[in-house]
Amino acid sequence: MVKASILNEIRNNSPLVHNITNYVVMNNTANALLSVGASPVMAHSLDEVEDIISISSSLVINMGTLSELWVDSMIKAGKKANELKKPIVFDPVGVGASSYRTEVAKEIIEKTSPSVIRGNASEIMVLAQLSSVTKGVDSTAKTVEALNGAIQLSKELNNTVVVSGETDYIVTRNKVSSINNGREIMSKVTGMGCTATSLIGASVAVEDDVHEAAVFSMALMGVAGEIAESKSNGPGSFQISFLDTLSSVSSKIISDNARIND
Amino acid sequence: MVKASILNEIRNNSPLVHNITNYVVMNNTANALLSVGASPVMAHSLDEVEDIISISSSLVINMGTLSELWVDSMIKAGKKANELKKPIVFDPVGVGASSYRTEVAKEIIEKTSPSVIRGNASEIMVLAQLSSVTKGVDSTAKTVEALNGAIQLSKELNNTVVVSGETDYIVTRNKVSSINNGREIMSKVTGMGCTATSLIGASVAVEDDVHEAAVFSMALMGVAGEIAESKSNGPGSFQISFLDTLSSVSSKIISDNARIND
Amino acid sequence: MVKASILNEIRNNSPLVHNITNYVVMNNTANALLSVGASPVMAHSLDEVEDIISISSSLVINMGTLSELWVDSMIKAGKKANELKKPIVFDPVGVGASSYRTEVAKEIIEKTSPSVIRGNASEIMVLAQLSSVTKGVDSTAKTVEALNGAIQLSKELNNTVVVSGETDYIVTRNKVSSINNGREIMSKVTGMGCTATSLIGASVAVEDDVHEAAVFSMALMGVAGEIAESKSNGPGSFQISFLDTLSSVSSKIISDNARIND
Repeated sequence: MVKASILNEIRNNSPLVHNITNYVVMNNTANALLSVGASPVMAHSLDEVEDIISISSSLVINMGTLSELWVDSMIKAGKKANELKKPIVFDPVGVGASSYRTEVAKEIIEKTSPSVIRGNASEIMVLAQLSSVTKGVDSTAKTVEALNGAIQLSKELNNTVVVSGETDYIVTRNKVSSINNGREIMSKVTGMGCTATSLIGASVAVEDDVHEAAVFSMALMGVAGEIAESKSNGPGSFQISFLDTLSSVSSKIISDNARIND
Repeated sequence: MVKASILNEIRNNSPLVHNITNYVVMNNTANALLSVGASPVMAHSLDEVEDIISISSSLVINMGTLSELWVDSMIKAGKKANELKKPIVFDPVGVGASSYRTEVAKEIIEKTSPSVIRGNASEIMVLAQLSSVTKGVDSTAKTVEALNGAIQLSKELNNTVVVSGETDYIVTRNKVSSINNGREIMSKVTGMGCTATSLIGASVAVEDDVHEAAVFSMALMGVAGEIAESKSNGPGSFQISFLDTLSSVSSKIISDNARIND
Repeated sequence: MVKASILNEIRNNSPLVHNITNYVVMNNTANALLSVGASPVMAHSLDEVEDIISISSSLVINMGTLSELWVDSMIKAGKKANELKKPIVFDPVGVGASSYRTEVAKEIIEKTSPSVIRGNASEIMVLAQLSSVTKGVDSTAKTVEALNGAIQLSKELNNTVVVSGETDYIVTRNKVSSINNGREIMSKVTGMGCTATSLIGASVAVEDDVHEAAVFSMALMGVAGEIAESKSNGPGSFQISFLDTLSSVSSKIISDNARIND
């Protein structure tokens, strides 16, 4: 079961989602959030992240193109979000690809206690210390291989861990939901994982049940991906159709087409 | 009346427009400028902004994803532009969303004396001190609410102030032009306001009458937006059609379709 | 003759290409690399560039939106690439537009010895000291005017120099190949040159003959550009079709349509 009414909540409330994300996907992320009905704000200066999270409903931290000053801002914003009890969604892009990236991911998790961590299988395995390397930012493992790591990580951090890929797993301690939607082409477009993370950011802004918010977001990604793929001729037109679909898809279409196992 | 011949001037002269803008929209902005026939250059290093504005015809300053070093560059470039008598167009993205952003906007205006300031209603109201907060980077006010603020601001700064939204107002002291073009979908695509600002940058590069340049730019945005919306299925395909339209639209189509009150 | 089998090598091996590139084109570049079958990674922090190039097959350095810290990272990554004997492709975007940019380009070339340099005619002429100025980032010269400069530069640096434009020249000391493919519209989309550079990065990752790798990449750009142009209505839809085409084009189509003189 997917709580598809979250889509209407996003559209009706247009929550402000504060993103500290990477250069590659900033435009996509902002457009995906606008298309689904949320209101994105991108702000990373140490001089303003506390003000920005204060007026926002959730915080998305994505370390895709990290550097020292940005990490400081992520942590500063995260601590303020904790203080204000606003949910944080963390995307540990490429963790394992460099020792710096691995250290930073651990530091962000330790200091900001994200409500949700979303990564591909390789990334989640690195965080769960089942592996120590990733190939750049793309996964080399199947998501099921990361499932035990996700469960272990979720218990340890007492939060929700999402492993996305051919099957998505949403894990909250002992609770595991899986989703079998989406299309292969989604791995041929940069930033689809980052988009998923930001949509979780929009969902946790309007839905208190974090597990349900994450399940809904991944179902939305998968169903919208299937619709968009059917209307596209390759990875370029797919991206365009995907944004169009996020804007037009109904909660009923998501409910009817999501293939979820709880 | 819109001075639609500015479009031909841009296409014939292909002015170099120096942009110091935000990460989210850099690609859009460059493509919009290329599509309309101008030549964009994005450069922000303190080590080169003076050289770059020296070979450019105008400067666009956009503070969407500001941080300390970038602000220093904006001001350095702006001062050089003043010295060389090249027009500056300023986009105070999200002013009011943080106290830092408000301070920076005021500093940029004070130190660089922009010929044009373009913002949404919330932003212009903050600058005119009719309000002190904005919701992130999206407007929560109607443009007509900002009109008096725009007039006051324009008189105080002796420049042109543009409030864009459902109705656009172009204000140069006591002169007010309004434009009723555009489509709702434009608020569902990131960076449309930033695109408007950069098109004003292209227009003031070829047209000395700054008010006319701003009126033309906003009419171009609105008419192109209407054409693009009629050919699109949502915010993704809209963006693509918008660039196609900027490239193909004629000055006659703009004249014929612009709904302007002077 | 074009060694079109390089396309299959890229698709079969999905080489990891490390990009230190500019903000404007990061998204395009990542998507072009994914569309053609390679795996992009964008990472610029001084704290991790050595780790990232160590797991990558090639390095692309693009100085489009350069600043001090980024240049330090480019050089650090480049030196490590040299040590590990991984090929470097350098794009001297806008060299000549500022004295800083010219100094940096020379420093990068001197310290990292790129296997390939790709620029437009103006840029290559500046590097060969046949000229000292460029108009921002767009070329004001025809590629044939830069041919002698490219030959001179290639001999001096003992590498491959590519001049791209209406005719592309690929020069490796006394060996000159030229390609007559592509469409005018490609100059109306930002970052097409940067895309060419990144595709060379993917090609040299799988093909030891650097000249052949560069010829193939430019033929791919040109042929894909022609196909994409035939399916598009302007610079917006062209970009989308171009990505779709990179993903679907076969090596046979490239062989059949490339107009190459060796």
